[in-house]
Amino acid sequence: MKLLEERIIKDGTVLPGGVLKVDCFLNHQLDIPLFCELAKEFYRLFADCNINKILTIEASGLGLASITAERFGCPVVFARKSRTKNLSPDVYSAKVFSFTHGEPYDALVSKKYLSPADNLLIIDDFLAMGEALTGLWSIAGQAGARVAGAGIAIEKAFQPGGDNLRKQGLRIESLARIASMDENGVTFC
Amino acid sequence: MKLLEERIIKDGTVLPGGVLKVDCFLNHQLDIPLFCELAKEFYRLFADCNINKILTIEASGLGLASITAERFGCPVVFARKSRTKNLSPDVYSAKVFSFTHGEPYDALVSKKYLSPADNLLIIDDFLAMGEALTGLWSIAGQAGARVAGAGIAIEKAFQPGGDNLRKQGLRIESLARIASMDENGVTFC
Repeated sequence: MKLLEERIIKDGTVLPGGVLKVDCFLNHQLDIPLFCELAKEFYRLFADCNINKILTIEASGLGLASITAERFGCPVVFARKSRTKNLSPDVYSAKVFSFTHGEPYDALVSKKYLSPADNLLIIDDFLAMGEALTGLWSIAGQAGARVAGAGIAIEKAFQPGGDNLRKQGLRIESLARIASMDENGVTFC
Repeated sequence: MKLLEERIIKDGTVLPGGVLKVDCFLNHQLDIPLFCELAKEFYRLFADCNINKILTIEASGLGLASITAERFGCPVVFARKSRTKNLSPDVYSAKVFSFTHGEPYDALVSKKYLSPADNLLIIDDFLAMGEALTGLWSIAGQAGARVAGAGIAIEKAFQPGGDNLRKQGLRIESLARIASMDENGVTFC
């Protein structure tokens, strides 16, 4: 998607260690008018899939998931990263390794909010090693829910997560796919 | 707001220990069509305030903040609850005690995303002791930003957070204000 690629080139910064910093529009400050355009594109891609629920994970995917759910007229369910007093003990869970924090966490979704009647679209802001997406796909599977696909804002296509999951049969639509990046800039697939 | 009060009565559960469980529509599964109605009401209340940015805190306020920001045509900035590799060390911060987790955390916002040029609306799903809201108001103050007010979905008005902050001069608009609640039900102000 041209609009997103241009925005990454304009405002993204590549830090040493393979970190793409896009926190001025994607994951700390959220450019909601941009999100509306991304959501429109997700809707175009998945409009004929009878999506009845969006699945995402806290925190930064939640804004994009919510704006996308508005297009589909459906609710969002988000996986929590820690067990809180307010979450039912009756949960689906998946162990997810966070490369940002260097340690694993449990992604948790209450069993009340996913079922075999659901036809899900998974939304997230980033896809790199595919850890979070694998966890969400597993949680959907535990619930017997169907996953029509995953809509991702930015995929680091030079990391294996996306292609591994595609090989396993998951439809993934990434709006910007980065082929390579370094301090001199970003190139797209 | 009648619509939200009716929804709390229909789907909310009061657990022992003063916990109002509304995770089926507000903070685990997000009823986005309902959020659109709440956002419309926030827009009606603050339409003449020249809001240029919404401030919230991860995670569960992020969906409502994003849908509300769409009405105002402005970005969202959200405070993070832990320092991650992707967050600039140059942050405004506030210590916030979490009654859900029984311990304090640091709310952090990068200094790049708040300034004296900002006129903020703070959005959150819950207001009880006012800890998170106090932290966000402090962060806005550190940045020299103006805070036009705070829009809250559910206020536990029998706890002192909201009135304490109102006395200190913060305009707070809560769409449902709970006067009392127990296992037999909820009454509103």
